[in-house]
Amino acid sequence: MPTYKAPVKDSLFILNEVLHLGQYAALPGFAEIGADTLAAVLEEGGRFAEEVIQPLNRTGDEQGCKRHPDGRVQTPDGFRDAYAKFVEAGWGGLAGDPAFGGQGLPHVVATAFEEYMIAANMAFTMYPMLTQGAIAAIRAVASPEQQQLFIPPMVDGRWTGTMNLTEPHCGTDLGLLRTRAEPQADGSYRLTGTKIFISSGEHDLTENIIHLVLAKLPDSPDSVKGISLFIVPKVLVNPDGSLGARNAVACGSLEEKMGIHGNATCVMNYDGATGYLIGERDKGLRAMFIMMNAARLGVGIQGLAQSEVSYQNAANYARERLQGRALSGPKNAAGKADPIIVHPDVRRMLMNARAFNEGARSLALWGALMVDLAEKSATPEARAAAEDQIGLLTPVIKGYFTDKGYENATNAQQCFGGHGYIREWGMEQFVRDARIAMIYEGTNGIQALDLVGRKLPANGGRALRAYLQLVGACIEECAADEQREFIAAPLKRALDDLQGATGWLMRHALMKPDNAAAGSMAYLHLLGLVALGHQWALMIKAAQTALANKAADTAFYENKIAVGRYYFSHVICETPAHRARVEAGADAMMALAAEAF
Amino acid sequence: MPTYKAPVKDSLFILNEVLHLGQYAALPGFAEIGADTLAAVLEEGGRFAEEVIQPLNRTGDEQGCKRHPDGRVQTPDGFRDAYAKFVEAGWGGLAGDPAFGGQGLPHVVATAFEEYMIAANMAFTMYPMLTQGAIAAIRAVASPEQQQLFIPPMVDGRWTGTMNLTEPHCGTDLGLLRTRAEPQADGSYRLTGTKIFISSGEHDLTENIIHLVLAKLPDSPDSVKGISLFIVPKVLVNPDGSLGARNAVACGSLEEKMGIHGNATCVMNYDGATGYLIGERDKGLRAMFIMMNAARLGVGIQGLAQSEVSYQNAANYARERLQGRALSGPKNAAGKADPIIVHPDVRRMLMNARAFNEGARSLALWGALMVDLAEKSATPEARAAAEDQIGLLTPVIKGYFTDKGYENATNAQQCFGGHGYIREWGMEQFVRDARIAMIYEGTNGIQALDLVGRKLPANGGRALRAYLQLVGACIEECAADEQREFIAAPLKRALDDLQGATGWLMRHALMKPDNAAAGSMAYLHLLGLVALGHQWALMIKAAQTALANKAADTAFYENKIAVGRYYFSHVICETPAHRARVEAGADAMMALAAEAF
Repeated sequence: MPTYKAPVKDSLFILNEVLHLGQYAALPGFAEIGADTLAAVLEEGGRFAEEVIQPLNRTGDEQGCKRHPDGRVQTPDGFRDAYAKFVEAGWGGLAGDPAFGGQGLPHVVATAFEEYMIAANMAFTMYPMLTQGAIAAIRAVASPEQQQLFIPPMVDGRWTGTMNLTEPHCGTDLGLLRTRAEPQADGSYRLTGTKIFISSGEHDLTENIIHLVLAKLPDSPDSVKGISLFIVPKVLVNPDGSLGARNAVACGSLEEKMGIHGNATCVMNYDGATGYLIGERDKGLRAMFIMMNAARLGVGIQGLAQSEVSYQNAANYARERLQGRALSGPKNAAGKADPIIVHPDVRRMLMNARAFNEGARSLALWGALMVDLAEKSATPEARAAAEDQIGLLTPVIKGYFTDKGYENATNAQQCFGGHGYIREWGMEQFVRDARIAMIYEGTNGIQALDLVGRKLPANGGRALRAYLQLVGACIEECAADEQREFIAAPLKRALDDLQGATGWLMRHALMKPDNAAAGSMAYLHLLGLVALGHQWALMIKAAQTALANKAADTAFYENKIAVGRYYFSHVICETPAHRARVEAGADAMMALAAEAF
Repeated sequence: MPTYKAPVKDSLFILNEVLHLGQYAALPGFAEIGADTLAAVLEEGGRFAEEVIQPLNRTGDEQGCKRHPDGRVQTPDGFRDAYAKFVEAGWGGLAGDPAFGGQGLPHVVATAFEEYMIAANMAFTMYPMLTQGAIAAIRAVASPEQQQLFIPPMVDGRWTGTMNLTEPHCGTDLGLLRTRAEPQADGSYRLTGTKIFISSGEHDLTENIIHLVLAKLPDSPDSVKGISLFIVPKVLVNPDGSLGARNAVACGSLEEKMGIHGNATCVMNYDGATGYLIGERDKGLRAMFIMMNAARLGVGIQGLAQSEVSYQNAANYARERLQGRALSGPKNAAGKADPIIVHPDVRRMLMNARAFNEGARSLALWGALMVDLAEKSATPEARAAAEDQIGLLTPVIKGYFTDKGYENATNAQQCFGGHGYIREWGMEQFVRDARIAMIYEGTNGIQALDLVGRKLPANGGRALRAYLQLVGACIEECAADEQREFIAAPLKRALDDLQGATGWLMRHALMKPDNAAAGSMAYLHLLGLVALGHQWALMIKAAQTALANKAADTAFYENKIAVGRYYFSHVICETPAHRARVEAGADAMMALAAEAF
C-alpha cells in the first residue's frame, strides 16, 4: 500500500529561505504567520493529510461513489468522517477572508498545505478545493448581501461549491451552451438545462452545495457574449441563512471514469431550478475566469502532488527491492542482489521526478505568493506586476505541471516493474488520477493557446518582458559567482531559446495565427523549463547561503544543490527541441486535408 | 464506441514498394506470396480483426477474466467463439513451419497481420501471440520427438503456450528464482514453485496449454548459470498426442490489473507438476531468450498497434466534434463551430501519432524481414548481417515503440477532452492497455541496457557500424537528389548526434559502466528517432517513385510525403536533447546517497 510523507521541510525551505516570506510582514495576513507559526501550521497540516486523508485513497479508488435511485450520491467509506474532521479543524478557511470567518493567512501558505492534501488523496481534496474557486467568483461579482449569505458557510466548509460550465456538446467553446435562465417576478431566475462533468456535483459530505452555473437569458446573444453566471443552491437558503426547500437540481448520473473514483463526477439536471444572477448579466464569463484561474493553479498543484507521492513510493520501493547487481560492483554484497536504486536508469526516473517536484514546488509557491501580492501589495504598480507574473505563469503551472505529473507518475509506476501494473500496489492509481489534470479546467492545449494567444501579447508583452528580465538578471548573478557559475550557461542557453522562440512568434504569428497555435505547446514547455531553471537557481543560492552560514542540516542543503545540478545537466537540455518545434511553424502540421486523417 | 480499420493499404505499400518483398522470391515461403496473394491475405486478415476481434475489445475490458473456485478461468463473453474462428481460419499458423502444419508464409507477412489483431484487441491477441514465442523456443532446443509431439497442435492453435519466468521476488534478475525441478526415474521432472504475471496462464479457449517454465535442478548452481527450461503441459500428453491426466499445475489467482483485462494474468502454482527438460540442463536462459526476442518484437508491435487504433479514433472524433473556430477563419461557416481538426494543437497530436505509426510500421516490417532473412538467406554472411540488424533494433522496437505507443494513446485520449477520461468512450482503455507494453518482456529500461551494454559492443560494434553505414548512404543519396534534399540535413544532424553519443559512450563507459547505463534510455530514443528517419527516407523515395510513375492513388503518396516532411520538421529535432543527456553522464544522476531519496 502506498504511503505519503508531506514534504514540510521542503515547503518551509522555499517559503522562508527562497521566497523570504518574512519580508512581507507589512501586508495583511503575513504578520500573523512568523516562521514558527508557519512551521506549526504546515506540520499539523502535513500530519492531517498523512493520517486522516491518505488512508482513504485506495479505498476511495476501489469503491468509488454510488448514486442511489433517488439521486443521492454516497461517497466512499470514511470520506464523511474525514471531511467532518477537515471542517472541524478549520482547514478549509486557512486563507479565507476574516470578514467571512476565515483565518486570513496568505494564499501561499494555504497552497503549501493544499499540495499535501492532494498528494494524500486527490479525489477527496477536490470536494473542498473547488469550493475555494466558487468563493473567489462570488466574492468578485456578487452583491454584498449575496456574499454575506453564501460565503461564510463555504469558508467554514459546511457547504461546498461547484463550477457548472460544460454541456454534452460544449466544453471549451462556451458560446455553444444551451442552459436557459428565465427571469422571475421576484428577481430570481429559473434554470433549465443539463451540465456534465460536474466534479463534486452531488455528495453526502455537507448539508448544502452551492452550484455556480453558466446559462443564457432568453434575450441574450447566443454566443459567449450572452452568458450569465448564477448561484443555484442545492437546498434553497432563507434570508437568515437557514435552509429552505430542496431546489430543482439533481444528479442524473455519475460518470464512470479512468480515475479519481472517489470524487463524484455528475451529470446535473436543472429542471427550472431557482438561481440568482451574480454580477452583470451577459458578463458571466469574466467571473467564471476568476474562478477558473484559481482552479487552474490548483490543478497545476495536482500535477505536482501526484508526481511527489508517486515519486516517494517509487523511491521507497527502489531502496527495498533487491534485483541484480550494480554495474559499479555489488552494493549489498552480503545479499543475493542489490536494491534497484543502484541502477542508473532507476535513478534517472527518480531524479527526473525529484528535480521536477522541488522546482515545481518552488514555482507553485512563488506563483501563490504572486496571487497574494496581486491582491495585497501596497501600490497599484506592485499589484499589477504581480498580476502580470501570475497571469503569465498560470497556463505554465497548469499545463507543464500536469504533463510532467503524469509522466513522473508513469515513471514511478515503471520503477515497480510488473508490480506497478497491478492495482493492489496503488501505483497505477496515481497514473489514472494524474491523467485528468491534463484535461480539465481547460485542456493543456487550451492552456498553451492561452499562453501564446493571450498572455504573451497582453499589454504589449509587458509580462513576458518583465519575466525575461528577472531570469536574465538571475543568470548574470550566477555568472558572476564562482559557486553558481555552473548554472549560468545552461540557463542562458534555455533563456536564449525562449527569446528566440518568442521572437519567431512575433515575426511569424501575427500574419498567420496558426503559427502561434502550432508551436504553443512547445512554447509552454519551453517556458516551463526556463521557469523551473529560474527557481532552481534561486534554491541553489539559498542552499549555498545556508551552508555558508553553517546551517545545521547540511545534508538537506547539499542534496538540494545536487538535485539542482541534475536539473541543469539532464533536464533543461530539452529547450532546443522545443524551440525547433516552435520555429518549424504550422505548414507541415497543417498540410493534410481533414479527410486525409 | 471505438472503431478500427486495418491499415492494409499502408502495409502493402511498405511490403511491396519500400521493402520490395518480390525480390526475395528465391527464399523459402516468399515465392508463394506474390503481390496479389499478399493483398488478399492482408485484406482478409484485416477484415477478421475488424469484424471478429475488435467488437470484443470493450466488453473484454469491462468483464475481464473470472477465476472459478476450482481454478478454471473464464475469458470474457465472445472470446471462445472468436478464438475458435481464429483457429478454424488458420490465422495462427500463417508463418508456421509447413513441417508442423503451418502455412510457411514469411514472418514479415504474419507481422503485418499481427498488428491488425493487436490493434483490434490487444488482450485477446495475447493468447495466440505468446504461443508463437513458445513454439520458437521448442523448435530451437527441444528434441525432434518433443517438437513433433508439442508443436503441431500449437501451430494450428488447438493448444496455446506460455512463458513462466517471473516469481514474486524475482523478475529481471532470474538468478534469484526458486522453482525447483526434481529428476524422476522416467527421465521427466517434478516441478514445484510459484510463478507470477503469467499471461494466458489459464483460460477456457483451448483443451491444453503448454507452459514453458524456468526452474533449477537440485544440484545446479544457484545463479543464472543453473537455470533449465521445461515443458509443463496443463494436461499431460500421451506419446500418440492424445490427452492424458491433468497435470499438477493450476492457476492460484488472477491479478487485478490496470488494463488488458481480457487477458488472464495468472499466479501459477506448480505442485510437483510433471515437466520435460528441453535443451541442455542449466542452459535454459538461452532458449528463453529466443522466445523473449520474438516476444519483444511482438510487444513493440503492441506499442504501434495501440498508437494506430487510438489515433484512428482521435482523428474520427476530431473531424466530427464541433467546437470553436479555426484561427485562420471559419472552416464550417454554416455551422455554429468548426470541427476541432482545424486547430493546430489537435493536428500536432494527430500528426505526431501518424508520423510515428507509419514510420514504426515500416521499421517493424523491415525488422520482421530481417528475422526472415536471418533464418532463410542463402549465405551465412547474409544471415549474420540480418541477425545483426534485428538484434540491434529489437530493443529499439520494443522500447521506443512502446514508449511512443503510450504517449500517442495518451494524446489520442487528449483529443477527446473530458470525454477521453470517461470509460464508455473507450479511449482511456487504449492508454491502460498500452501501458503494460513498456513493462513486460523486460522493462524498457532493461531494453536500453540490452542495447548499450550488449548489442552495441557485440562483435566489436559490427551491427551498429553496418547500420550507421546504411543510414549514412541513404543520407548521401537524399543529398544528391533535389526532391529528397529536404531529408538530408535533419537526418544527418540526427545521425551525427547518434554517432557523437556513440563515441562518447565508447570513450567514457568502458572504465565506468554507469555512464553507459545513465545514458541508455536517451540513446535508445536517439536510435529510434534515427531509425524512423531512415524508414521515412525510404518511404518518401518510394512515394516519389510511385508519383513519377503515375500511380493511380496520388493522394495516398502525396499524404505519405507530407507526413514524412512533418517527421523531419517537427519530430526528429529531439535528437540533440538525447545526445546531451548521454553526454551528461552518470555523475549528477548518481550523486545522492540512496537514503537521500
